[in-house]
Amino acid sequence: MLFVTGNPAKFEEASALIPGLKQADIGPPEIQADRLEDVARFSVEYAYKELGEPCFVEDAGLFVNALNGFPGAYSHYAFDTIGSKGILRLLEGVKDRGARFEACIAYHDGKGVRVFSGRVDGAIASRELGSGGFGFDPIFVPNGHDRTFAEDPAHKQEVSHRARALRKFLGFLGKPL
Amino acid sequence: MLFVTGNPAKFEEASALIPGLKQADIGPPEIQADRLEDVARFSVEYAYKELGEPCFVEDAGLFVNALNGFPGAYSHYAFDTIGSKGILRLLEGVKDRGARFEACIAYHDGKGVRVFSGRVDGAIASRELGSGGFGFDPIFVPNGHDRTFAEDPAHKQEVSHRARALRKFLGFLGKPL
Repeated sequence: MLFVTGNPAKFEEASALIPGLKQADIGPPEIQADRLEDVARFSVEYAYKELGEPCFVEDAGLFVNALNGFPGAYSHYAFDTIGSKGILRLLEGVKDRGARFEACIAYHDGKGVRVFSGRVDGAIASRELGSGGFGFDPIFVPNGHDRTFAEDPAHKQEVSHRARALRKFLGFLGKPL
Repeated sequence: MLFVTGNPAKFEEASALIPGLKQADIGPPEIQADRLEDVARFSVEYAYKELGEPCFVEDAGLFVNALNGFPGAYSHYAFDTIGSKGILRLLEGVKDRGARFEACIAYHDGKGVRVFSGRVDGAIASRELGSGGFGFDPIFVPNGHDRTFAEDPAHKQEVSHRARALRKFLGFLGKPL
């Protein structure tokens, strides 16, 4: 089983749940689509053609309510350009801090594609806090908690969008890989 | 000759320069890539496979210097979510207002793909001005001018990124279509 990703932090989070997982960093194209599922399906079809063996991709994003879901499926690019500070600036003076992380795993078993989604609801912090995790983790506080994902990576690993999608995926596989 | 686009305003701007142009609204996938050229090449390959006749796509974006090029190739999505007001907010108190529009036309003639680019340099206005054009036109003032593209669409039609890319394309074709 191959996890197709170029992101070492993502691979590490997945490896913690799937012992023996291998990484394939082939950089399949990602389409521009508002739904993560569409992005992930397209990428895994491409990856399977390249690799010729069972593999999965994972796409994730931060969806901010008051910003009409921005940066969503384009979170990676938004992080690289405007960063967490850009999101904080866009929310200055905004009352609704509600946001969610979503993750979508698309798995190609050689016959077809199956999709597993996970989400975690929370809020955007007033400033960046913590140094764990990656991406927008320093500004995301999950509901029922008072610290950001970056302040408490162990808690992230329990409740995160990615962990939830991975657990659904593992449940489907029904056995250790 | 088919212009593959779902954007009526883009089609109108192109038709003004290419009489007899026809529109094909087939929505080819756009990949996530920082370079417009990569996005356009991928889309036109797909479109040609679908349509089976010479066609071109055009991809454009606003690149803001102080935002590391954001929103760039993702301008459409950024406009739909955070809009011009979002860009203005990200630039509050920022001295460098420099920005450029870029356009990239990818043309498939049945044998291969050729690319034609255009750009216009300018600055982000302090507020939205004008009602012409579309997208981020109300906040973009081209260099050497004191009004936004939305305030002076006739001037936009002369100097815009899209007009420049289209003129290069027409020069290549060497004849009226």
